[in-house]
Amino acid sequence: MDFSYDARTEELRGQLLAFLDACVYPAEPVLAAQLASSDRPEWSIPPVVRELQAEARSRGLWNLFLPGELGAGLTNLQYAPLAELTGRSVLLAPAALNCAAPDTGNMELLAQFGDEAQRKQWLEPLLNAEIRSAFAMTEPEVASSDATNITTRIERDGDDYLVTGRKWYITGAMNPDCKVFIVMGKTDPAAEPRRQQSMILVPRDTPGVTVRRGMTVFGYGDADHGGHAEILFENVRVPAANLIGPEGSGFAIAQARLGPGRIHHCMRAIGVAERALELMCRRVTERVAFGRPLAEQGVVQEWIAESRVRIEQARLLVLKTAWLMDTVGNRGAHTEIQAIKIAVPAMTEWVLDKAVQAHGAAGVSQDTPLAQLWAGNRTLRLADGPDEVHRRSLARRELKRYREA
Amino acid sequence: MDFSYDARTEELRGQLLAFLDACVYPAEPVLAAQLASSDRPEWSIPPVVRELQAEARSRGLWNLFLPGELGAGLTNLQYAPLAELTGRSVLLAPAALNCAAPDTGNMELLAQFGDEAQRKQWLEPLLNAEIRSAFAMTEPEVASSDATNITTRIERDGDDYLVTGRKWYITGAMNPDCKVFIVMGKTDPAAEPRRQQSMILVPRDTPGVTVRRGMTVFGYGDADHGGHAEILFENVRVPAANLIGPEGSGFAIAQARLGPGRIHHCMRAIGVAERALELMCRRVTERVAFGRPLAEQGVVQEWIAESRVRIEQARLLVLKTAWLMDTVGNRGAHTEIQAIKIAVPAMTEWVLDKAVQAHGAAGVSQDTPLAQLWAGNRTLRLADGPDEVHRRSLARRELKRYREA
Amino acid sequence: MDFSYDARTEELRGQLLAFLDACVYPAEPVLAAQLASSDRPEWSIPPVVRELQAEARSRGLWNLFLPGELGAGLTNLQYAPLAELTGRSVLLAPAALNCAAPDTGNMELLAQFGDEAQRKQWLEPLLNAEIRSAFAMTEPEVASSDATNITTRIERDGDDYLVTGRKWYITGAMNPDCKVFIVMGKTDPAAEPRRQQSMILVPRDTPGVTVRRGMTVFGYGDADHGGHAEILFENVRVPAANLIGPEGSGFAIAQARLGPGRIHHCMRAIGVAERALELMCRRVTERVAFGRPLAEQGVVQEWIAESRVRIEQARLLVLKTAWLMDTVGNRGAHTEIQAIKIAVPAMTEWVLDKAVQAHGAAGVSQDTPLAQLWAGNRTLRLADGPDEVHRRSLARRELKRYREA
Amino acid sequence: MDFSYDARTEELRGQLLAFLDACVYPAEPVLAAQLASSDRPEWSIPPVVRELQAEARSRGLWNLFLPGELGAGLTNLQYAPLAELTGRSVLLAPAALNCAAPDTGNMELLAQFGDEAQRKQWLEPLLNAEIRSAFAMTEPEVASSDATNITTRIERDGDDYLVTGRKWYITGAMNPDCKVFIVMGKTDPAAEPRRQQSMILVPRDTPGVTVRRGMTVFGYGDADHGGHAEILFENVRVPAANLIGPEGSGFAIAQARLGPGRIHHCMRAIGVAERALELMCRRVTERVAFGRPLAEQGVVQEWIAESRVRIEQARLLVLKTAWLMDTVGNRGAHTEIQAIKIAVPAMTEWVLDKAVQAHGAAGVSQDTPLAQLWAGNRTLRLADGPDEVHRRSLARRELKRYREA
Repeated sequence: MDFSYDARTEELRGQLLAFLDACVYPAEPVLAAQLASSDRPEWSIPPVVRELQAEARSRGLWNLFLPGELGAGLTNLQYAPLAELTGRSVLLAPAALNCAAPDTGNMELLAQFGDEAQRKQWLEPLLNAEIRSAFAMTEPEVASSDATNITTRIERDGDDYLVTGRKWYITGAMNPDCKVFIVMGKTDPAAEPRRQQSMILVPRDTPGVTVRRGMTVFGYGDADHGGHAEILFENVRVPAANLIGPEGSGFAIAQARLGPGRIHHCMRAIGVAERALELMCRRVTERVAFGRPLAEQGVVQEWIAESRVRIEQARLLVLKTAWLMDTVGNRGAHTEIQAIKIAVPAMTEWVLDKAVQAHGAAGVSQDTPLAQLWAGNRTLRLADGPDEVHRRSLARRELKRYREA
Repeated sequence: MDFSYDARTEELRGQLLAFLDACVYPAEPVLAAQLASSDRPEWSIPPVVRELQAEARSRGLWNLFLPGELGAGLTNLQYAPLAELTGRSVLLAPAALNCAAPDTGNMELLAQFGDEAQRKQWLEPLLNAEIRSAFAMTEPEVASSDATNITTRIERDGDDYLVTGRKWYITGAMNPDCKVFIVMGKTDPAAEPRRQQSMILVPRDTPGVTVRRGMTVFGYGDADHGGHAEILFENVRVPAANLIGPEGSGFAIAQARLGPGRIHHCMRAIGVAERALELMCRRVTERVAFGRPLAEQGVVQEWIAESRVRIEQARLLVLKTAWLMDTVGNRGAHTEIQAIKIAVPAMTEWVLDKAVQAHGAAGVSQDTPLAQLWAGNRTLRLADGPDEVHRRSLARRELKRYREA
Repeated sequence: MDFSYDARTEELRGQLLAFLDACVYPAEPVLAAQLASSDRPEWSIPPVVRELQAEARSRGLWNLFLPGELGAGLTNLQYAPLAELTGRSVLLAPAALNCAAPDTGNMELLAQFGDEAQRKQWLEPLLNAEIRSAFAMTEPEVASSDATNITTRIERDGDDYLVTGRKWYITGAMNPDCKVFIVMGKTDPAAEPRRQQSMILVPRDTPGVTVRRGMTVFGYGDADHGGHAEILFENVRVPAANLIGPEGSGFAIAQARLGPGRIHHCMRAIGVAERALELMCRRVTERVAFGRPLAEQGVVQEWIAESRVRIEQARLLVLKTAWLMDTVGNRGAHTEIQAIKIAVPAMTEWVLDKAVQAHGAAGVSQDTPLAQLWAGNRTLRLADGPDEVHRRSLARRELKRYREA
Repeated sequence: MDFSYDARTEELRGQLLAFLDACVYPAEPVLAAQLASSDRPEWSIPPVVRELQAEARSRGLWNLFLPGELGAGLTNLQYAPLAELTGRSVLLAPAALNCAAPDTGNMELLAQFGDEAQRKQWLEPLLNAEIRSAFAMTEPEVASSDATNITTRIERDGDDYLVTGRKWYITGAMNPDCKVFIVMGKTDPAAEPRRQQSMILVPRDTPGVTVRRGMTVFGYGDADHGGHAEILFENVRVPAANLIGPEGSGFAIAQARLGPGRIHHCMRAIGVAERALELMCRRVTERVAFGRPLAEQGVVQEWIAESRVRIEQARLLVLKTAWLMDTVGNRGAHTEIQAIKIAVPAMTEWVLDKAVQAHGAAGVSQDTPLAQLWAGNRTLRLADGPDEVHRRSLARRELKRYREA
């Protein structure tokens, strides 16, 4: 268990911190202003993101998430502290570095499971941030954390597949630059439970695709990163070559995608919590009530101490998970990946709640990032399966240890 | 301690339940559609509210909150279960019955402390729902839960007062029909702490008043009830007759206003929790995951049982508080008023969180009321002073009992 | 819902408060000394209890728990605030008033289900505190909260029954004055689940009865009230007339017994919490750390405020439950009886934990009652079925409401 | 941050695991029997401990806690996983390895601050387990977590010091083999706050020393490790040479002692939690209620999953703290030492509570170790200063970071 930051990590951390200070934090109010203005096409990515992307790329801070030759080639352990730093300005920094969900997961998926043509057509422009992509898994009508519940159909029809189904909370898909959807559906509902599903690439402009509306998250449309779409697929015809991997491999690919996806979310969530703690500390130092700064009130001090204690523990578990993924693979790190999925968003939610409380009305407003961060973080207790599903699964593995012993 | 619902209460409950079933619940999707459409003047109250108001009034369900001859003349204990029922559709029912905050508090204030002219000019149209009103207390720059921190000035200038200051989170004030603001400011910063403040009526269209922007609450603009405004008062000149009560009475009036205001909020919050529990129960009965309805999963059953247990306790404390206010007055019920302020929103937040979790993505979306209810309820841990202030005060009284004994 | 204390209740409260002040609190150190001394027969009730019983009886504070002519004839609502007061000195006051578990439940059971001979032989001396009794239900080998799991056999053999089984945590049974055990066992394991069980009276000195050892509760032997015995029943022969009610009625009788039993426990637990809060308030007023009394530290104030808020809610729910039992019967109050079983011990545990923390080392010691109260209260989350079983059952009833609607 | 277990650690872990399996676990019932029997001198260490000590020493598992040449020479990081393993049988294993509190802290103190004569007289027999020792810091009358509150006096009188004061919860001191007390008192109450205190060695048999009584911890006397004594020091005369370090160094020595002491407690507490989780998993696999093993009930699965997630996080924070102490020293690890003091006992308490609940009545009894482990662990939230003091201090350092930035 060596979680040390090696030389490469330290160097990139230094560069990233400098980039945050010089470019990203100053861009936060610019983003807010551009989002509030009605001058740009609805749901399009605000121009400030493009500018930051150019700057980040010129600084070598690009595609850090992607292992192998196509990306920065970092290990999970090297990337973890960098992803955490992007969480400090989570609406801007991940996008600026081309390290934002869901594109990161989609790029990994294409790099790992896409064939050459698919990589050429979709991965290359994604790596250059020329387009964005979405991952269409969740369905409104069923508990889709149980993959056997998925109702979307992907049916073979000659040289094509016909895709039919309804998806929602497809993050990023309201953005017109989001040019392709990776759709999860069933090619063979009669197969064994984990061989029924496949994934297929559906270009945005394919006939039969209707991007219906933007779903909200506690009142936020999340226009900054392309919102969360409800999408109708009605007899959408795509070439058979659009299938990713063989028929029936959808479940396995989804599992493979989720490991890194979860750890990225958790890394960033640590950064979110650090930002919230910093904002809380600054606020309570400035505000005076009943004759003393809030910072001297015992209850506020408990919040701050507990926040620090919880963040430290959560970060270490994320680092251990990253290290395990690097050393024994995603399967070997299965328990830890579930553990951080359970622990980290809950921790960040707690810290954010206290930071909101310390800010009074400002905490729930658009004048601090706290409320929006809270809403985004809250979805992590649901996304990729609710915590309850993961606890059940983790408990079963724990119990098995003793039954076998 | 007799919390029985008397005959009048039972009769009104029956009428209100019938009105909810027949008119209010069916109007919920209409409200959502009208809010989503851009056909009406920004921030104006959607037409469906007006229609419900007419219907409610014709049914005798009007101004139920107001004691005395001007209103329905109910006691707090009689009104409590009715207010709870309005909480079941909290975006519509309180407004429909002309029992929505902040107008309720303002009407009580005018009825109790306004002079005849003030009542004539402002209370009458409010009682008829011809106009709406706002209460301008909270300031962005200071911890205004400590009234000595208030920086807004109300300075005598001949026969007038000049009002200068900045307020925010002034609920309802974005609505153009909100014609008057009751502004809290200092007439004498040199007086003893609780005699520095006064309240004054400022008509919306007075020169120097700038309604700057709508503040958001976790992404919600709350356009359905006139939003939450930031308002600038720059040398706003109003006649001296606009002062409510004598100079220096602002703190005392605010205290008098807060008692009923808090209990109304808490009554409605119980109704919100009941609605959330009902939605949760219905949802988990329908959804199946891993081979069984969610309703049969132990963790979900714990949520439901705990919700019921917590709601029951909170309701009883609210009823006791109402009964105390009726029998020994607001001062005598001071501890209990603080106790419900602490206990009820926290309870409702817990139930809403579980209901959101049980709904998955739908829980955070615009397709169920849960996320918006959560956001509105979250502000109750901050509004009228954060919980921490109330806990401190309640503890001091508790400690005093033993020191005196 | 009228929870008012009527004239009789107020009168008894006054008498009980006077008795506590004059006799019970002063006897607490006496009890501790007698328990620590080795002068009396092991497990026998300390003499101070006998003295208090004589005094209480002479003051008319006797058998208050028992409805009907045999006892004080109080309703549950009348008894509730009195039981709460006994909880303020829970090691002495209930015993002093002959209102201590498990005798209260046993006396009710005999009054309700015993035949004349049984009442004559056992109920009379119990009502006079000449003997004590135990209720032998829990078994070490099975989850006996599920009555179908019970393994103890009660087999007919001519004019007798033979009882065979092992029981533990039989409260009071180490006391040699505990002359009779009410044993739950199966007369017909083949009957339908709720008709398999019967209850039978087993005198302590019957051959085949072995009182094996005293079980401990977090290190406490609870010698003050006869400990908690493990008892072996080996072919214990008792006359058939010792059966309580007809064969197969054991489950129903147990259910009937549990209702009042639970509410008595909860009433007393409220008193325990009040005592803990009082001790905490006194302690923090006296202790100084870092230049200020603990009472002025924000964190301690939060504990005190939360304690008050939680106690108030719990008490109201207990009173409502008592009122319901009086007005609609134990069956009609089923949900509320479960609700207080879940809510009250958890509340009291929370208050006790904070009181312990406020006392430092003294809190875990024999020099304050807090640690022993904590241990006794902790068992209430397990006794008569763990909370989890009650939550499950309560949730099912809640869910049913919506399925039927 | 390299937390890997190096070769030496792995080798010792292997040896320790083998020793636990072969000798310690089998000795647990023997210990219980010897403690229950009245054959040995009161408060003396049960013979089984001596036997285990001989065996452990012969296996080279001896004084592992002590760095430098006098002990095993392990780093904190090497010792941490070994201490955790001793926590799995915390009543026996630490004593068996001569690694039990408070002797460990005392031996470190003597090794670091004692002069040659003191080391000769007291450290040598302690290293050989020929005697035991106690650390007399806590006082009943004051909040002694604030060292300025200490009232015990150490006054110079010619070539001697006179010690006068009252201490309690002096762990181990009831044991007649506990031959020496390290007493904290004030040599100069007029000095600056952190220079008032000194430490002095007081042999047990010095005139004026009265070991008054054993204090209990939730009903446990803790006779297995010498109990917790109240001790009176009345004009106790000891040679001036018994002072440890110069006058006024007591506060600094105490601080130095607490760092390793806390981390040892926390390491063992992780082991306690692991043991509790194992017992819980085994129990729920065996018990059946309502037709299914407890292990298949969702609520129980949540307990198990949460336990695993919390233990993992806590362990990593302990390891990081150990690594920091090794690399930047105790001062540099100050925040982390406080963090584990706050986080670990609370985590272990949570896991123990769930394990108790899963065991039903057995969980609170003498038939599982859970209740006693719970009681011992509960004191860690108070010992060496209550959590609240540590949170306050940690928060202040956190706040300082932002004020300086």
